[in-house]
Amino acid sequence: MDFTEQTATAAVRDSIAPGTEPRLTELFVGLVDHLHAYVREVRPTVAEWAVAVDFLTAVGQKCDDTRQEFVLLSDVLGISMLVETINGQEVGTESTVLGPFHMTESPRRASGDSIDLLEGGRDCVVELRVLDPDGAPLPGAVVDIWQCSADGFYDVQQPDVQPPGNGRGLFEADDDGHVWFRTVVPSHYPIPVDGPVGGLLGSLGRHPYRPAHIHVIATTEGHRELITHLFVADSEHIDSDAVFAVKKSLIVDFDELDDPRAAQRYGVDVPFRRARYDIVLNPLSAGEAA
Amino acid sequence: MDFTEQTATAAVRDSIAPGTEPRLTELFVGLVDHLHAYVREVRPTVAEWAVAVDFLTAVGQKCDDTRQEFVLLSDVLGISMLVETINGQEVGTESTVLGPFHMTESPRRASGDSIDLLEGGRDCVVELRVLDPDGAPLPGAVVDIWQCSADGFYDVQQPDVQPPGNGRGLFEADDDGHVWFRTVVPSHYPIPVDGPVGGLLGSLGRHPYRPAHIHVIATTEGHRELITHLFVADSEHIDSDAVFAVKKSLIVDFDELDDPRAAQRYGVDVPFRRARYDIVLNPLSAGEAA
Ligand SMILES: [Fe+2]
Ligand SMILES: [Fe+2]
Repeated sequence: MDFTEQTATAAVRDSIAPGTEPRLTELFVGLVDHLHAYVREVRPTVAEWAVAVDFLTAVGQKCDDTRQEFVLLSDVLGISMLVETINGQEVGTESTVLGPFHMTESPRRASGDSIDLLEGGRDCVVELRVLDPDGAPLPGAVVDIWQCSADGFYDVQQPDVQPPGNGRGLFEADDDGHVWFRTVVPSHYPIPVDGPVGGLLGSLGRHPYRPAHIHVIATTEGHRELITHLFVADSEHIDSDAVFAVKKSLIVDFDELDDPRAAQRYGVDVPFRRARYDIVLNPLSAGEAA
Repeated sequence: MDFTEQTATAAVRDSIAPGTEPRLTELFVGLVDHLHAYVREVRPTVAEWAVAVDFLTAVGQKCDDTRQEFVLLSDVLGISMLVETINGQEVGTESTVLGPFHMTESPRRASGDSIDLLEGGRDCVVELRVLDPDGAPLPGAVVDIWQCSADGFYDVQQPDVQPPGNGRGLFEADDDGHVWFRTVVPSHYPIPVDGPVGGLLGSLGRHPYRPAHIHVIATTEGHRELITHLFVADSEHIDSDAVFAVKKSLIVDFDELDDPRAAQRYGVDVPFRRARYDIVLNPLSAGEAA
Protein backbone atom coordinates (compact mmCIF):
# COMPACT_ATOMS: atom_id res chain seq x y z
CA MET A 1 0.00 0.00 0.00
CA ASP A 2 1.31 3.47 -0.85
CA PHE A 3 1.76 6.16 1.81
CA THR A 4 -0.91 8.77 1.12
CA GLU A 5 -2.92 11.26 3.14
CA GLN A 6 -5.61 8.59 3.34
CA THR A 7 -3.45 5.59 4.26
CA ALA A 8 -1.03 7.34 6.65
CA THR A 9 -2.93 6.63 9.86
CA ALA A 10 -3.48 2.95 9.10
CA ALA A 11 0.22 2.60 8.24
CA VAL A 12 1.26 3.83 11.67
CA ARG A 13 -1.41 1.78 13.44
CA ASP A 14 -0.32 -1.37 11.58
CA SER A 15 3.31 -0.87 12.60
CA ILE A 16 2.50 -1.88 16.19
CA ALA A 17 3.43 -5.48 16.94
CA PRO A 18 0.69 -7.95 17.92
CA GLY A 19 0.95 -8.67 21.62
CA THR A 20 1.80 -5.08 22.55
CA GLU A 21 0.42 -4.13 25.95
CA PRO A 22 -3.27 -3.34 25.24
CA ARG A 23 -3.49 -0.08 27.21
CA LEU A 24 -0.31 1.28 25.57
CA THR A 25 -1.73 0.32 22.19
CA GLU A 26 -4.97 2.15 23.00
CA LEU A 27 -3.16 5.28 24.16
CA PHE A 28 -0.77 5.27 21.17
CA VAL A 29 -3.33 4.48 18.46
CA GLY A 30 -5.69 7.12 19.83
CA LEU A 31 -2.91 9.70 19.82
CA VAL A 32 -1.93 8.91 16.23
CA ASP A 33 -5.57 9.02 15.10
CA HIS A 34 -6.19 12.41 16.66
CA LEU A 35 -2.86 14.02 15.68
CA HIS A 36 -3.24 12.85 12.08
CA ALA A 37 -6.81 14.17 12.01
CA TYR A 38 -5.44 17.48 13.31
CA VAL A 39 -2.79 17.63 10.57
CA ARG A 40 -5.31 16.75 7.86
CA GLU A 41 -7.61 19.47 9.16
CA VAL A 42 -5.25 22.42 9.67
CA ARG A 43 -2.84 21.34 6.89
CA PRO A 44 0.37 22.82 8.32
CA THR A 45 3.11 23.78 5.89
CA VAL A 46 6.48 22.11 6.35
CA ALA A 47 7.72 25.40 7.84
CA GLU A 48 4.80 25.61 10.30
CA TRP A 49 5.43 22.05 11.46
CA ALA A 50 9.10 22.89 11.97
CA VAL A 51 8.04 25.81 14.20
CA ALA A 52 5.85 23.44 16.24
CA VAL A 53 8.75 20.99 16.66
CA ASP A 54 11.07 23.82 17.70
CA PHE A 55 8.48 25.02 20.22
CA LEU A 56 8.12 21.57 21.80
CA THR A 57 11.90 21.20 21.90
CA ALA A 58 12.21 24.54 23.71
CA VAL A 59 9.52 23.46 26.20
CA GLY A 60 11.50 20.31 27.00
CA GLN A 61 14.77 22.18 27.28
CA LYS A 62 13.26 24.68 29.73
CA CYS A 63 12.54 21.88 32.22
CA ASP A 64 14.88 21.34 35.16
CA ASP A 65 14.67 20.24 38.79
CA THR A 66 12.49 23.19 39.78
CA ARG A 67 10.69 24.00 36.54
CA GLN A 68 8.29 21.75 34.62
CA GLU A 69 7.41 23.66 31.44
CA PHE A 70 5.56 20.68 29.91
CA VAL A 71 3.19 20.57 32.88
CA LEU A 72 2.70 24.29 32.32
CA LEU A 73 1.92 23.66 28.64
CA SER A 74 -0.54 20.92 29.59
CA ASP A 75 -2.05 23.38 32.09
CA VAL A 76 -2.58 26.29 29.68
CA LEU A 77 -4.05 23.90 27.08
CA GLY A 78 -6.66 22.92 29.69
CA ILE A 79 -5.51 19.30 29.47
CA SER A 80 -4.25 18.94 33.05
CA MET A 81 -7.62 20.12 34.29
CA LEU A 82 -9.55 17.94 31.82
CA VAL A 83 -7.63 14.85 32.97
CA GLU A 84 -8.28 15.88 36.57
CA THR A 85 -12.00 16.32 35.87
CA ILE A 86 -12.33 13.00 34.03
CA ASN A 87 -10.83 11.24 37.02
CA GLY A 88 -12.97 13.10 39.54
CA GLN A 89 -15.77 11.52 41.54
CA GLU A 90 -19.47 12.20 41.65
CA VAL A 91 -19.54 12.47 45.42
CA GLY A 92 -17.63 14.77 47.75
CA THR A 93 -15.66 17.97 47.31
CA GLU A 94 -14.40 18.49 43.77
CA SER A 95 -10.69 18.15 43.06
CA THR A 96 -8.46 20.45 41.07
CA VAL A 97 -4.82 20.48 39.95
CA LEU A 98 -1.97 20.03 42.43
CA GLY A 99 0.16 22.85 41.00
CA PRO A 100 3.96 23.10 41.21
CA PHE A 101 4.44 24.58 44.69
CA HIS A 102 3.77 21.56 46.90
CA MET A 103 7.51 20.96 46.91
CA THR A 104 8.28 21.15 50.63
CA GLU A 105 6.76 19.57 53.71
CA SER A 106 4.26 21.74 55.54
CA PRO A 107 5.06 22.28 59.22
CA ARG A 108 2.68 20.66 61.74
CA ARG A 109 0.50 23.30 63.34
CA ALA A 110 -2.35 23.33 65.86
CA SER A 111 -5.80 24.63 65.02
CA GLY A 112 -5.92 28.36 65.60
CA ASP A 113 -2.24 28.87 64.68
CA SER A 114 -1.31 31.45 62.11
CA ILE A 115 0.39 30.31 58.90
CA ASP A 116 1.28 33.96 58.18
CA LEU A 117 4.83 34.31 59.51
CA LEU A 118 5.25 37.73 57.86
CA GLU A 119 2.45 39.30 59.91
CA GLY A 120 2.10 42.12 57.46
CA GLY A 121 -1.32 41.71 55.89
CA ARG A 122 -4.92 41.97 56.97
CA ASP A 123 -6.07 39.15 59.27
CA CYS A 124 -8.01 36.34 57.71
CA VAL A 125 -9.59 33.32 59.39
CA VAL A 126 -10.24 30.05 57.55
CA GLU A 127 -12.57 27.53 59.17
CA LEU A 128 -12.91 24.08 57.68
CA ARG A 129 -14.95 21.02 58.55
CA VAL A 130 -13.89 17.64 57.21
CA LEU A 131 -16.95 15.44 56.72
CA ASP A 132 -18.04 12.23 55.10
CA PRO A 133 -20.76 12.37 52.42
CA ASP A 134 -23.47 11.91 55.10
CA GLY A 135 -22.24 14.97 56.95
CA ALA A 136 -20.59 13.03 59.78
CA PRO A 137 -17.31 14.59 61.00
CA LEU A 138 -14.01 12.86 60.24
CA PRO A 139 -11.92 13.40 63.39
CA GLY A 140 -8.17 12.98 62.88
CA ALA A 141 -8.34 13.86 59.18
CA VAL A 142 -5.12 15.57 58.08
CA VAL A 143 -5.40 18.83 56.15
CA ASP A 144 -2.30 20.11 54.33
CA ILE A 145 -2.53 23.80 53.47
CA TRP A 146 -0.26 25.96 51.28
CA GLN A 147 -0.81 29.40 49.82
CA CYS A 148 1.09 32.37 48.50
CA SER A 149 1.56 35.66 50.34
CA ALA A 150 -0.52 38.81 49.94
CA ASP A 151 2.11 39.77 47.33
CA GLY A 152 1.56 36.61 45.28
CA PHE A 153 4.70 34.60 46.10
CA TYR A 154 5.15 31.20 47.74
CA ASP A 155 7.80 30.86 50.43
CA VAL A 156 9.99 28.74 48.11
CA GLN A 157 10.01 31.54 45.55
CA GLN A 158 11.27 34.13 48.04
CA PRO A 159 13.79 32.39 50.31
CA ASP A 160 15.34 35.77 51.19
CA VAL A 161 12.03 37.39 52.11
CA GLN A 162 9.83 34.64 53.55
CA PRO A 163 10.78 32.19 56.31
CA PRO A 164 10.41 28.56 55.20
CA GLY A 165 6.92 27.29 55.97
CA ASN A 166 5.29 30.68 55.53
CA GLY A 167 1.80 30.11 54.17
CA ARG A 168 1.95 26.39 54.99
CA GLY A 169 0.52 24.20 57.70
CA LEU A 170 -0.35 20.58 58.39
CA PHE A 171 -3.45 20.40 60.63
CA GLU A 172 -5.39 17.60 62.26
CA ALA A 173 -9.17 17.77 62.50
CA ASP A 174 -10.63 17.71 66.02
CA ASP A 175 -13.48 15.50 67.26
CA ASP A 176 -15.99 17.60 65.34
CA GLY A 177 -13.89 17.41 62.12
CA HIS A 178 -12.92 21.06 62.63
CA VAL A 179 -9.70 22.73 61.48
CA TRP A 180 -9.14 26.46 61.63
CA PHE A 181 -6.19 28.77 61.14
CA ARG A 182 -5.24 32.39 60.75
CA THR A 183 -3.61 33.69 57.59
CA VAL A 184 -3.68 36.55 55.10
CA VAL A 185 -5.83 36.54 51.98
CA PRO A 186 -3.54 35.23 49.21
CA SER A 187 -3.05 37.24 46.05
CA HIS A 188 -3.71 36.25 42.44
CA TYR A 189 -0.36 35.51 40.76
CA PRO A 190 1.09 34.82 37.30
CA ILE A 191 2.38 31.45 36.16
CA PRO A 192 6.03 31.69 34.98
CA VAL A 193 6.15 33.57 31.66
CA ASP A 194 9.89 33.60 30.98
CA GLY A 195 9.73 30.36 28.94
CA PRO A 196 8.15 29.22 25.68
CA VAL A 197 4.71 28.74 27.29
CA GLY A 198 4.78 32.39 28.36
CA GLY A 199 5.62 33.27 24.77
CA LEU A 200 2.65 31.24 23.54
CA LEU A 201 0.28 32.97 25.98
CA GLY A 202 1.59 36.32 24.75
CA SER A 203 0.97 35.41 21.11
CA LEU A 204 -2.58 34.35 21.97
CA GLY A 205 -3.28 37.55 23.91
CA ARG A 206 -3.86 35.50 27.05
CA HIS A 207 -2.95 36.78 30.53
CA PRO A 208 -0.89 34.45 32.76
CA TYR A 209 -2.77 34.98 36.05
CA ARG A 210 -4.31 32.52 38.43
CA PRO A 211 -7.06 33.82 40.74
CA ALA A 212 -6.22 33.84 44.46
CA HIS A 213 -6.52 30.43 46.09
CA ILE A 214 -5.50 28.29 49.05
CA HIS A 215 -4.25 24.78 48.23
CA VAL A 216 -5.67 21.86 50.21
CA ILE A 217 -4.82 18.18 50.43
CA ALA A 218 -7.15 16.34 52.80
CA THR A 219 -6.63 12.72 53.80
CA THR A 220 -8.01 10.30 56.32
CA GLU A 221 -7.99 6.55 56.62
CA GLY A 222 -10.52 4.71 54.49
CA HIS A 223 -11.19 7.75 52.29
CA ARG A 224 -9.90 8.91 48.95
CA GLU A 225 -7.24 11.62 49.10
CA LEU A 226 -8.58 15.00 47.97
CA ILE A 227 -6.33 17.51 46.18
CA THR A 228 -8.05 20.82 45.61
CA HIS A 229 -8.04 24.62 45.98
CA LEU A 230 -10.33 27.05 47.76
CA PHE A 231 -10.71 30.06 45.47
CA VAL A 232 -11.21 33.57 46.85
CA ALA A 233 -14.59 34.60 45.42
CA ASP A 234 -13.74 38.27 44.86
CA SER A 235 -10.27 37.67 43.41
CA GLU A 236 -9.18 39.18 40.13
CA HIS A 237 -9.29 36.68 37.25
CA ILE A 238 -11.72 34.38 39.08
CA ASP A 239 -13.45 33.90 35.69
CA SER A 240 -10.28 33.44 33.65
CA ASP A 241 -7.76 31.25 35.47
CA ALA A 242 -4.79 30.78 33.11
CA VAL A 243 -4.82 27.05 33.92
CA PHE A 244 -8.64 26.60 34.02
CA ALA A 245 -8.60 25.11 37.53
CA VAL A 246 -11.64 26.96 38.92
CA LYS A 247 -14.79 24.96 39.62
CA LYS A 248 -17.83 26.80 40.90
CA SER A 249 -18.14 24.57 43.95
CA LEU A 250 -14.62 25.58 45.02
CA ILE A 251 -15.29 29.34 45.06
CA VAL A 252 -15.52 30.52 48.66
CA ASP A 253 -16.66 33.86 50.06
CA PHE A 254 -14.03 35.52 52.18
CA ASP A 255 -16.45 37.69 54.17
CA GLU A 256 -15.44 41.06 55.60
CA LEU A 257 -16.30 41.08 59.34
CA ASP A 258 -16.02 43.89 61.88
CA ASP A 259 -17.68 42.33 64.90
CA PRO A 260 -15.20 42.89 67.79
CA ARG A 261 -16.49 39.87 69.74
CA ALA A 262 -15.96 37.55 66.77
CA ALA A 263 -12.51 39.05 66.28
CA GLN A 264 -11.69 38.43 69.93
CA ARG A 265 -12.85 34.81 69.66
CA TYR A 266 -10.35 34.24 66.83
CA GLY A 267 -7.62 36.42 68.32
CA VAL A 268 -7.57 38.85 65.39
CA ASP A 269 -8.18 42.57 64.89
CA VAL A 270 -11.22 44.14 63.24
CA PRO A 271 -11.91 44.39 60.40
CA PHE A 272 -10.95 40.86 59.35
CA ARG A 273 -12.01 38.35 56.72
CA ARG A 274 -13.39 34.90 57.25
CA ALA A 275 -13.87 31.90 54.93
CA ARG A 276 -15.78 28.76 55.93
CA TYR A 277 -15.85 25.59 53.88
CA ASP A 278 -16.92 21.96 54.29
CA ILE A 279 -14.51 19.44 52.83
CA VAL A 280 -16.34 16.21 52.00
CA LEU A 281 -14.17 13.12 51.55
CA ASN A 282 -15.28 10.06 49.66
CA PRO A 283 -15.02 6.63 51.30
CA LEU A 284 -12.79 4.23 49.35
CA SER A 285 -14.65 1.63 47.38
CA ALA A 286 -13.97 -1.99 48.28
CA GLY A 287 -11.58 -2.24 45.31
CA GLU A 288 -9.65 0.93 46.18
CA ALA A 289 -9.30 -0.12 49.81
CA ALA A 290 -7.75 -3.45 48.81
CA MET B 1 -19.79 28.62 33.33
CA ASP B 2 -18.32 25.73 35.30
CA PHE B 3 -15.30 23.76 34.06
CA THR B 4 -16.57 20.32 33.12
CA GLU B 5 -15.64 17.60 30.66
CA GLN B 6 -18.17 19.18 28.30
CA THR B 7 -17.18 22.84 28.69
CA ALA B 8 -13.39 22.40 28.86
CA THR B 9 -12.67 22.86 25.16
CA ALA B 10 -14.81 25.97 24.81
CA ALA B 11 -13.14 27.45 27.89
CA VAL B 12 -9.70 27.16 26.32
CA ARG B 13 -10.93 28.39 22.94
CA ASP B 14 -12.59 31.41 24.56
CA SER B 15 -9.38 32.36 26.37
CA ILE B 16 -7.81 33.53 23.10
CA ALA B 17 -7.94 37.30 22.69
CA PRO B 18 -9.89 38.77 19.78
CA GLY B 19 -7.45 40.06 17.19
CA THR B 20 -5.04 37.14 17.60
CA GLU B 21 -3.27 36.29 14.35
CA PRO B 22 -5.86 34.17 12.46
CA ARG B 23 -3.55 31.36 11.37
CA LEU B 24 -2.14 30.97 14.90
CA THR B 25 -5.70 30.87 16.21
CA GLU B 26 -6.60 28.17 13.70
CA LEU B 27 -3.54 26.06 14.55
CA PHE B 28 -4.06 26.47 18.31
CA VAL B 29 -7.82 25.93 18.41
CA GLY B 30 -7.50 22.85 16.20
CA LEU B 31 -4.82 21.43 18.48
CA VAL B 32 -6.91 21.98 21.60
CA ASP B 33 -9.99 20.46 19.94
CA HIS B 34 -8.15 17.33 18.90
CA LEU B 35 -6.11 16.85 22.08
CA HIS B 36 -9.21 17.30 24.25
CA ALA B 37 -11.11 14.82 22.06
CA TYR B 38 -8.19 12.42 22.53
CA VAL B 39 -8.29 12.80 26.32
CA ARG B 40 -12.08 12.36 26.43
CA GLU B 41 -11.74 9.23 24.31
CA VAL B 42 -8.85 7.38 25.99
CA ARG B 43 -9.55 8.81 29.47
CA PRO B 44 -6.01 8.77 30.84
CA THR B 45 -5.56 8.46 34.57
CA VAL B 46 -3.65 11.24 36.30
CA ALA B 47 -0.70 8.83 36.55
CA GLU B 48 -0.83 7.98 32.83
CA TRP B 49 -0.87 11.66 31.92
CA ALA B 50 2.14 12.23 34.16
CA VAL B 51 3.98 9.47 32.26
CA ALA B 52 3.14 11.21 28.97
CA VAL B 53 4.46 14.54 30.28
CA ASP B 54 7.64 12.86 31.54
CA PHE B 55 8.11 11.22 28.12
CA LEU B 56 7.75 14.53 26.24
CA THR B 57 10.13 16.18 28.69
CA ALA B 58 12.73 13.45 28.09
CA VAL B 59 12.31 13.89 24.31
CA GLY B 60 13.04 17.61 24.65
CA GLN B 61 15.98 17.04 26.94
CA LYS B 62 17.55 14.54 24.51
CA CYS B 63 17.82 17.24 21.84
CA ASP B 64 21.15 18.99 21.25
CA ASP B 65 23.11 20.46 18.34
CA THR B 66 23.40 17.11 16.56
CA ARG B 67 20.30 15.27 17.79
CA GLN B 68 16.67 16.24 17.20
CA GLU B 69 14.60 13.73 19.15
CA PHE B 70 11.32 15.63 18.55
CA VAL B 71 11.78 15.34 14.80
CA LEU B 72 12.36 11.64 15.39
CA LEU B 73 9.14 11.44 17.42
CA SER B 74 7.25 13.26 14.68
CA ASP B 75 8.83 10.81 12.20
CA VAL B 76 7.85 7.59 13.98
CA LEU B 77 4.30 8.92 14.51
CA GLY B 78 4.05 9.30 10.72
CA ILE B 79 3.41 13.02 11.14
CA SER B 80 6.53 14.31 9.37
CA MET B 81 5.61 12.23 6.36
CA LEU B 82 1.93 13.21 6.50
CA VAL B 83 2.88 16.91 6.55
CA GLU B 84 5.28 16.26 3.65
CA THR B 85 2.55 14.47 1.69
CA ILE B 86 -0.05 17.16 2.32
CA ASN B 87 2.34 19.74 0.93
CA GLY B 88 3.32 17.64 -2.07
CA GLN B 89 2.33 18.44 -5.63
CA GLU B 90 0.23 16.56 -8.14
CA VAL B 91 2.85 16.81 -10.84
CA GLY B 92 6.45 15.66 -10.89
CA THR B 93 8.52 13.31 -8.77
CA GLU B 94 7.11 12.75 -5.29
CA SER B 95 8.90 14.25 -2.31
CA THR B 96 9.77 12.62 0.97
CA VAL B 97 11.37 13.68 4.26
CA LEU B 98 14.74 15.45 4.36
CA GLY B 99 16.12 13.37 7.23
CA PRO B 100 18.80 14.48 9.71
CA PHE B 101 21.99 13.77 7.74
CA HIS B 102 22.02 16.66 5.26
CA MET B 103 24.24 18.50 7.71
CA THR B 104 27.33 19.13 5.62
CA GLU B 105 27.91 20.53 2.14
CA SER B 106 28.28 17.90 -0.58
CA PRO B 107 31.52 18.21 -2.61
CA ARG B 108 31.12 19.26 -6.25
CA ARG B 109 31.73 16.28 -8.51
CA ALA B 110 31.61 15.62 -12.27
CA SER B 111 29.27 13.09 -13.82
CA GLY B 112 30.88 9.69 -13.77
CA ASP B 113 32.78 10.36 -10.55
CA SER B 114 32.54 7.92 -7.70
CA ILE B 115 31.07 9.10 -4.41
CA ASP B 116 32.41 5.93 -2.74
CA LEU B 117 35.71 7.04 -1.24
CA LEU B 118 36.06 3.78 0.72
CA GLU B 119 36.21 1.66 -2.43
CA GLY B 120 35.29 -1.44 -0.50
CA GLY B 121 31.88 -2.48 -1.77
CA ARG B 122 30.36 -3.83 -4.94
CA ASP B 123 30.19 -1.26 -7.78
CA CYS B 124 26.90 0.44 -8.40
CA VAL B 125 25.97 2.94 -11.10
CA VAL B 126 23.18 5.48 -10.69
CA GLU B 127 21.92 7.23 -13.81
CA LEU B 128 19.48 10.10 -13.47
CA ARG B 129 17.70 12.35 -15.92
CA VAL B 130 16.30 15.66 -14.72
CA LEU B 131 13.24 16.56 -16.77
CA ASP B 132 10.32 18.94 -16.82
CA PRO B 133 6.78 17.49 -16.73
CA ASP B 134 6.70 17.37 -20.56
CA GLY B 135 9.82 15.21 -20.63
CA ALA B 136 12.14 17.98 -21.81
CA PRO B 137 15.61 17.85 -20.22
CA LEU B 138 16.63 20.49 -17.67
CA PRO B 139 20.32 21.16 -18.42
CA GLY B 140 22.23 22.76 -15.56
CA ALA B 141 19.91 21.37 -12.89
CA VAL B 142 21.82 20.75 -9.67
CA VAL B 143 21.46 17.34 -8.00
CA ASP B 144 22.64 16.98 -4.40
CA ILE B 145 23.19 13.34 -3.40
CA TRP B 146 23.93 11.81 0.00
CA GLN B 147 23.77 8.23 1.19
CA CYS B 148 25.13 5.94 3.86
CA SER B 149 27.83 3.33 3.32
CA ALA B 150 27.31 -0.36 2.64
CA ASP B 151 27.57 -0.72 6.44
CA GLY B 152 24.72 1.72 7.08
CA PHE B 153 26.59 4.79 8.35
CA TYR B 154 26.82 8.33 6.98
CA ASP B 155 30.25 9.96 6.83
CA VAL B 156 29.34 12.35 9.67
CA GLN B 157 28.58 9.38 11.92
CA GLN B 158 31.98 7.78 11.37
CA PRO B 159 34.57 10.59 11.20
CA ASP B 160 37.34 8.12 12.10
CA VAL B 161 36.40 5.60 9.41
CA GLN B 162 35.00 7.60 6.49
CA PRO B 163 36.65 10.60 4.81
CA PRO B 164 34.39 13.69 4.83
CA GLY B 165 32.22 13.77 1.73
CA ASN B 166 32.05 9.99 1.42
CA GLY B 167 28.67 9.11 -0.07
CA ARG B 168 28.05 12.72 -1.08
CA GLY B 169 28.19 14.63 -4.32
CA LEU B 170 26.84 17.79 -5.93
CA PHE B 171 26.31 17.22 -9.66
CA GLU B 172 25.20 19.36 -12.55
CA ALA B 173 23.00 17.93 -15.29
CA ASP B 174 24.44 17.99 -18.83
CA ASP B 175 22.68 19.23 -21.98
CA ASP B 176 20.49 16.13 -22.01
CA GLY B 177 19.59 16.58 -18.33
CA HIS B 178 21.80 13.59 -17.46
CA VAL B 179 23.68 13.01 -14.22
CA TRP B 180 25.43 9.75 -13.37
CA PHE B 181 27.79 8.57 -10.69
CA ARG B 182 29.40 5.50 -9.26
CA THR B 183 28.75 4.41 -5.69
CA VAL B 184 27.99 1.38 -3.52
CA VAL B 185 24.48 0.20 -2.76
CA PRO B 186 23.64 1.81 0.60
CA SER B 187 22.48 -0.34 3.49
CA HIS B 188 19.26 -0.18 5.47
CA TYR B 189 20.02 1.40 8.87
CA PRO B 190 18.35 2.05 12.23
CA ILE B 191 17.24 5.45 13.46
CA PRO B 192 18.88 6.31 16.82
CA VAL B 193 17.35 4.13 19.54
CA ASP B 194 19.31 5.30 22.59
CA GLY B 195 16.70 7.96 23.48
CA PRO B 196 13.05 8.00 24.59
CA VAL B 197 11.78 7.49 21.01
CA GLY B 198 13.81 4.27 20.82
CA GLY B 199 12.20 3.24 24.09
CA LEU B 200 8.75 3.91 22.65
CA LEU B 201 9.47 1.84 19.54
CA GLY B 202 10.64 -0.99 21.79
CA SER B 203 7.46 -0.87 23.85
CA LEU B 204 5.38 -1.00 20.68
CA GLY B 205 7.36 -3.93 19.27
CA ARG B 206 8.42 -1.78 16.31
CA HIS B 207 11.82 -2.15 14.63
CA PRO B 208 13.87 1.05 14.09
CA TYR B 209 15.07 0.38 10.53
CA ARG B 210 14.85 2.47 7.41
CA PRO B 211 15.08 0.65 4.06
CA ALA B 212 18.17 1.46 1.99
CA HIS B 213 17.90 4.77 0.12
CA ILE B 214 19.84 7.52 -1.61
CA HIS B 215 18.87 11.08 -0.68
CA VAL B 216 18.29 13.59 -3.48
CA ILE B 217 17.71 17.32 -3.60
CA ALA B 218 17.18 18.56 -7.14
CA THR B 219 16.95 22.25 -8.02
CA THR B 220 16.95 24.37 -11.13
CA GLU B 221 15.87 27.90 -11.87
CA GLY B 222 12.16 28.41 -12.35
CA HIS B 223 11.28 25.05 -10.76
CA ARG B 224 10.24 23.96 -7.33
CA GLU B 225 12.98 22.37 -5.21
CA LEU B 226 12.50 18.61 -4.83
CA ILE B 227 13.61 16.81 -1.66
CA THR B 228 13.26 13.06 -1.94
CA HIS B 229 14.83 9.59 -1.67
CA LEU B 230 15.41 6.81 -4.15
CA PHE B 231 14.64 3.56 -2.33
CA VAL B 232 16.46 0.34 -3.16
CA ALA B 233 13.68 -2.00 -4.28
CA ASP B 234 15.12 -5.19 -2.80
CA SER B 235 16.16 -3.64 0.53
CA GLU B 236 15.18 -5.13 3.84
CA HIS B 237 12.27 -3.25 5.49
CA ILE B 238 11.14 -1.72 2.18
CA ASP B 239 7.56 -2.36 3.37
CA SER B 240 8.05 -1.13 6.93
CA ASP B 241 10.16 2.04 7.01
CA ALA B 242 10.31 3.16 10.66
CA VAL B 243 9.54 6.72 9.53
CA PHE B 244 7.00 5.83 6.79
CA ALA B 245 8.89 7.73 4.08
CA VAL B 246 8.52 5.16 1.28
CA LYS B 247 6.27 6.03 -1.65
CA LYS B 248 5.80 3.45 -4.39
CA SER B 249 6.91 5.86 -7.09
CA LEU B 250 10.27 6.29 -5.32
CA ILE B 251 11.16 2.59 -5.27
CA VAL B 252 13.88 1.93 -7.85
CA ASP B 253 15.25 -1.37 -9.15
CA PHE B 254 18.98 -1.69 -8.63
CA ASP B 255 19.52 -4.26 -11.41
CA GLU B 256 22.29 -6.82 -11.26
CA LEU B 257 24.31 -6.60 -14.51
CA ASP B 258 27.20 -8.72 -15.73
CA ASP B 259 27.65 -7.42 -19.28
CA PRO B 260 31.41 -6.68 -19.57
CA ARG B 261 30.88 -4.03 -22.29
CA ALA B 262 28.40 -2.12 -20.15
CA ALA B 263 30.80 -2.39 -17.23
CA GLN B 264 33.60 -1.01 -19.35
CA ARG B 265 31.43 1.91 -20.48
CA TYR B 266 30.88 2.87 -16.82
CA GLY B 267 34.43 2.01 -15.73
CA VAL B 268 33.29 -0.63 -13.23
CA ASP B 269 33.85 -4.35 -12.75
CA VAL B 270 31.31 -7.10 -13.39
CA PRO B 271 29.02 -7.97 -11.80
CA PHE B 272 27.69 -4.52 -10.89
CA ARG B 273 24.33 -2.96 -10.11
CA ARG B 274 22.61 -0.16 -11.93
CA ALA B 275 19.70 2.11 -11.05
CA ARG B 276 18.05 4.50 -13.49
CA TYR B 277 15.52 7.13 -12.52
CA ASP B 278 13.86 10.18 -14.07
CA ILE B 279 13.54 13.15 -11.73
CA VAL B 280 10.68 15.39 -12.84
CA LEU B 281 10.70 18.94 -11.49
CA ASN B 282 7.63 21.11 -11.33
CA PRO B 283 7.74 24.64 -12.83
CA LEU B 284 7.02 27.33 -10.27
CA SER B 285 3.57 28.82 -10.50
CA ALA B 286 3.37 32.54 -11.23
CA GLY B 287 2.79 33.17 -7.51
CA GLU B 288 5.73 31.03 -6.35
CA ALA B 289 8.07 32.63 -8.87
CA ALA B 290 7.22 36.13 -7.62
FE1 LIG C 1 -1.09 28.05 43.74
FE1 LIG D 1 18.95 8.52 5.17
